Amino acid sequence: MKSSRIHNLITAAVVGALAFTTTVVQAADALRSWNDGKTKQSVIDFVKRVSVKGGKDFVPVPERVAVFDNDGTLWAEQPMYFQLAFALDRVKALASQHPEWKEKEPFASLLKGDVRSALSGGEKALMEIVMATHAGTTTGEFEKIVRDWLATAKHPKTGRRYNEMIYQPMVELLRYLRAFGFKTYIVSGGGVEFMRPWVEKAYGIPPEQVIGSTIKTKFEMRDGKPVIRRLPEVDFIDDKEGKPVAINKFIGRRPIFAIGNSDGDYEMLRWTAAGDGARLMMLVHHDDDKREYAYGPTSKVGTFSDALMAQAKKNSWNLISMKDDWKRVFAFDK
Amino acid sequence: MKSSRIHNLITAAVVGALAFTTTVVQAADALRSWNDGKTKQSVIDFVKRVSVKGGKDFVPVPERVAVFDNDGTLWAEQPMYFQLAFALDRVKALASQHPEWKEKEPFASLLKGDVRSALSGGEKALMEIVMATHAGTTTGEFEKIVRDWLATAKHPKTGRRYNEMIYQPMVELLRYLRAFGFKTYIVSGGGVEFMRPWVEKAYGIPPEQVIGSTIKTKFEMRDGKPVIRRLPEVDFIDDKEGKPVAINKFIGRRPIFAIGNSDGDYEMLRWTAAGDGARLMMLVHHDDDKREYAYGPTSKVGTFSDALMAQAKKNSWNLISMKDDWKRVFAFDK
Repeated sequence: MKSSRIHNLITAAVVGALAFTTTVVQAADALRSWNDGKTKQSVIDFVKRVSVKGGKDFVPVPERVAVFDNDGTLWAEQPMYFQLAFALDRVKALASQHPEWKEKEPFASLLKGDVRSALSGGEKALMEIVMATHAGTTTGEFEKIVRDWLATAKHPKTGRRYNEMIYQPMVELLRYLRAFGFKTYIVSGGGVEFMRPWVEKAYGIPPEQVIGSTIKTKFEMRDGKPVIRRLPEVDFIDDKEGKPVAINKFIGRRPIFAIGNSDGDYEMLRWTAAGDGARLMMLVHHDDDKREYAYGPTSKVGTFSDALMAQAKKNSWNLISMKDDWKRVFAFDK
Repeated sequence: MKSSRIHNLITAAVVGALAFTTTVVQAADALRSWNDGKTKQSVIDFVKRVSVKGGKDFVPVPERVAVFDNDGTLWAEQPMYFQLAFALDRVKALASQHPEWKEKEPFASLLKGDVRSALSGGEKALMEIVMATHAGTTTGEFEKIVRDWLATAKHPKTGRRYNEMIYQPMVELLRYLRAFGFKTYIVSGGGVEFMRPWVEKAYGIPPEQVIGSTIKTKFEMRDGKPVIRRLPEVDFIDDKEGKPVAINKFIGRRPIFAIGNSDGDYEMLRWTAAGDGARLMMLVHHDDDKREYAYGPTSKVGTFSDALMAQAKKNSWNLISMKDDWKRVFAFDK
């Protein structure tokens, strides 16, 4: 090998290493809403391990798949899942078209403002509310309904728009991963078409990377134009065992990074962890009743059971303490 | 505005225009298996219209979605769908584990080499064959079975491997579109997990951009490790009205470019055509019995009905004549 060629190779290697270091430093700064410490460092170390070319844990860019739960992981979920708040508001908005609801549960209780009684009917009552408020429209109409709701509805505790209730450290983490070639996906129990209208702006996640629960839809002609109509029938529930099933169906690759916050995410983390090579599994722990909420095994929303905590410890999954690891929770925090 | 700033702006515009022109020229050269003429030009013109910044038909990169049917559009489909050839080979391979098949239709006829009698049982017989050969394994096992089959099975007419029976002009078209920022998807009636093991290498389409028919799957633990098992139950048939439904579910954006070759693609083209702004709809016409096959309205495989031809003419969808528009059909052609 000619010495000039050797020189060129060395130069390339040094420049490459410098560029990488610069990127890591810049990106670490991009995680500015994270407190320095073990948790932030575990993310930086993992990203470094999988992206240094020639390293033993190197992962090619197309395989850098990261999956994020949404409710309680990317945005808040208390005092009730925001999609349920949407559904309840829709019941009120649609009540005048449904005079029969005054006599019919769960709608009658809801319209009297008694959410607890309305939901006492369990799964069946909930499904009736979901179908009455999420089906019947075309996909285009539903998108507009979601957008209009987000533009006006306010969170009961903070008075903020729901799409402002997103975790700033997570927005930074998503951006950080993408800067290193990761493809970031939402894998949520929430409805796909409830998320798509706002998640691209909120998280930088495009519609085709939103995986969630779905109702069936039907292609049909309306006034000579094709539409897709939303039917009052469950297609898929993207929760628990459904999450790895949906990941396989929509992505067809096993993620190397997975992050959730509740029992519904256990199988997704388990599926991610069972692959070969370097991977990172994380769980957000809501332990911050000052800036957000503190809840765990006894909460009906976002249950983080003792069994999940035991699994997290046994498998060395990383816990994110909202209180200790996050410098800031929401962008609107000082 | 300072004159130096004006100068910079002009320079930037000129450089931009030059860069664009160079890209168009290079890319047109990339379509080298296409004969010059109206069809090739319609592709080049369309791509130019949607990608010139500031042009009235400009489409932002994330919205440049192109959907391709697979059987008969990206690869051949005669004398039978290749996935059916796979299924028939699997029946033979599995026969020793199923002694009961000797007496049971449609398997008995198949094992005697009488495909016609086996398939005379219609949809029901076909489903029995599909489920017996596509379900029961884990997703990982099935991927290996598909890879092993592709490595050995040969097309009855050309003697080539099935994944060599891909249309070279289409491989170039996919590459050309991607060079202009398009995201290219398969939207096929074929099975997702039958396509994923080979389409990335063949077409440059990654697993997460493969939409197709699916059977149900189930997450379960096996020897302490999670697996996804394929169940003998249809989940979704991605054909006809199913195509726009799946496009909405998986992509969540309406394509601006759609290409198919048979009646199963009509609704996909219709859905694509009904959006606002510039769009291109194309249909491959198999009229080349010398280099490939010639078939149309009377073919059971890849039916191109007179009604579809009438719609194509009425809506000015572009017909691709395999005989006239393609300089070469397969990469192995001289």
